[in-house]
Amino acid sequence: MITDWNQRRVLVTGAAGFIGSHLTDRLLSAGAHVVGYDNFSTGIREFLASARSHPAFRLIEGDVLDSERLAGAMQAVDMVFHLAANADVRHGLEHPRQDLEQNTIATFSVLEAMRTTAVKNLAFASTGSIYGEATVVPTPEDAPFPLQTSLYGASKLAAEGMIAAYCEGYGMRSWIFRFVSILGERYTHGHVLDFYNKLLADPSRLHVLGDGHQRKSYLYVQDCIDGMLCAIGRAGDRVNVFNLGTDHCCEVSDSVRSITAYLRLAPVVDYAGGERGWIGDNPLIWLDTRRIRALGWTPTLTIEQSLIRTIAWLVENRWVLALRA
Amino acid sequence: MITDWNQRRVLVTGAAGFIGSHLTDRLLSAGAHVVGYDNFSTGIREFLASARSHPAFRLIEGDVLDSERLAGAMQAVDMVFHLAANADVRHGLEHPRQDLEQNTIATFSVLEAMRTTAVKNLAFASTGSIYGEATVVPTPEDAPFPLQTSLYGASKLAAEGMIAAYCEGYGMRSWIFRFVSILGERYTHGHVLDFYNKLLADPSRLHVLGDGHQRKSYLYVQDCIDGMLCAIGRAGDRVNVFNLGTDHCCEVSDSVRSITAYLRLAPVVDYAGGERGWIGDNPLIWLDTRRIRALGWTPTLTIEQSLIRTIAWLVENRWVLALRA
Repeated sequence: MITDWNQRRVLVTGAAGFIGSHLTDRLLSAGAHVVGYDNFSTGIREFLASARSHPAFRLIEGDVLDSERLAGAMQAVDMVFHLAANADVRHGLEHPRQDLEQNTIATFSVLEAMRTTAVKNLAFASTGSIYGEATVVPTPEDAPFPLQTSLYGASKLAAEGMIAAYCEGYGMRSWIFRFVSILGERYTHGHVLDFYNKLLADPSRLHVLGDGHQRKSYLYVQDCIDGMLCAIGRAGDRVNVFNLGTDHCCEVSDSVRSITAYLRLAPVVDYAGGERGWIGDNPLIWLDTRRIRALGWTPTLTIEQSLIRTIAWLVENRWVLALRA
Repeated sequence: MITDWNQRRVLVTGAAGFIGSHLTDRLLSAGAHVVGYDNFSTGIREFLASARSHPAFRLIEGDVLDSERLAGAMQAVDMVFHLAANADVRHGLEHPRQDLEQNTIATFSVLEAMRTTAVKNLAFASTGSIYGEATVVPTPEDAPFPLQTSLYGASKLAAEGMIAAYCEGYGMRSWIFRFVSILGERYTHGHVLDFYNKLLADPSRLHVLGDGHQRKSYLYVQDCIDGMLCAIGRAGDRVNVFNLGTDHCCEVSDSVRSITAYLRLAPVVDYAGGERGWIGDNPLIWLDTRRIRALGWTPTLTIEQSLIRTIAWLVENRWVLALRA
């Protein structure tokens, strides 16, 4: 368990990503020395602008699949936050190798780098998608053994399994976080961005996948990071698994309302229909967060507040839309 | 669902293995055309002696990681039985890449070959090891979400996850079997062979890992194949998961007694001590088999009868010991 980050040495994979860059900033503020590791395939340099001006930050450009380079970057590190991933849940079926390589094999590469450099602590960004179509909702960490419905979920499940086995076999310790979708500043992919993009192209009309009743739970990025740091400070098992989400969920149609209201638009909303937005989409990811709440964590923003912050940030940072076009 | 194998075309990966060769023989007897695919890294040519004299059998030497070769072998096949694997649970920590490559990535390779050739049905040999240290014993298929304790278990969990996601995403159908340890003729690795080897070297003494109280459940290989074929004939979900094992378990010390009694030896048995035989060993794998029993399957041999058949076969086939030395 780590409660005081002052002078701690950490490595963050995916440091230039949405969550990774916020985490990097937070750890630097807390006095840690941070090695940011990113291949910039989806990471965004601007997100590290503030970190790069900090004397305790070092950026290493590299791919997590390059285990040797990664091991070199890991020397004398107390903890690794492995956040680099292919986070494109929706298009997994178009390139099935991507999830295997960038999530499963990449995590193996991180574990091997840790083993060879004797780094013992790992935090890992997993996903609520690994519950597949959960039979228990809200879904607790010890839900019935799930069937996978997406290659993304399967690849993260595989990563979790290897992490647990490495902890057992090589005396490491891990904190595995199963996230709902995360919202907030630096948000760069997902439905809020899709909606905003479509509304910029045609403010009078919004085409939405599914029937609008898909329910999802979202969490604000700073609350997500609070949750991670809380668990790392207070949970001391060999393998610590925590859901991270809000205690409620909203329908896609609610998001549409919040977003269009913020933008002061009144488009005709055209739902494609069907329970799922796409094959492998979960109509409902709503996680039971009692385990992390029992440690004293609680989210500070509601889903609607997070949505508003996200869309407000996108409006102020339209350059992100161009990057993703 | 397939109930009649007559004229069916099937491909068996790991066809020269312990279970694969018996399955091949059974499918040939049932009138199927069988393509046996094996790289002979651990497969044994002698096990296919009878199959190779059968006109409906074709052997292809190849590695499952060679997805193109595998796809070539899969043309016009109705069903794939993916049994090829690294089955060395115990030494996983000495070569962590092996489970990832030979179990996880290899299964991906099988799935990709099926996708490109439009083969829609897959049976997969998984393992009770994926339940880790189960909190519910006997352990049902929908046990609480487990933590992995071995790289072997983790690699099979990863394979199961990808299979389920491929079924969901590409309209395939699968039957996933979580085995206990399998015993019977052509048994080539595991504790019975280890004990026999040690007793041949020194009949007066037997060193046993753990404290002898590790409880395990075993299943006779023909009962295992009966179970697989029963489920494939009667379970028609997209993803069908079945435990396969006997309804009871025995202690390692019981196995020692059965084996030494059969060999008419009375060695001093020297237990190393400790709850586990090795790191990641499960002190108890005992599966709840009500799901497969509800389909009408039941094992014909007890654990002790299976043990006796195994040791009897080893005594008659000591050439196998030399292969494994």
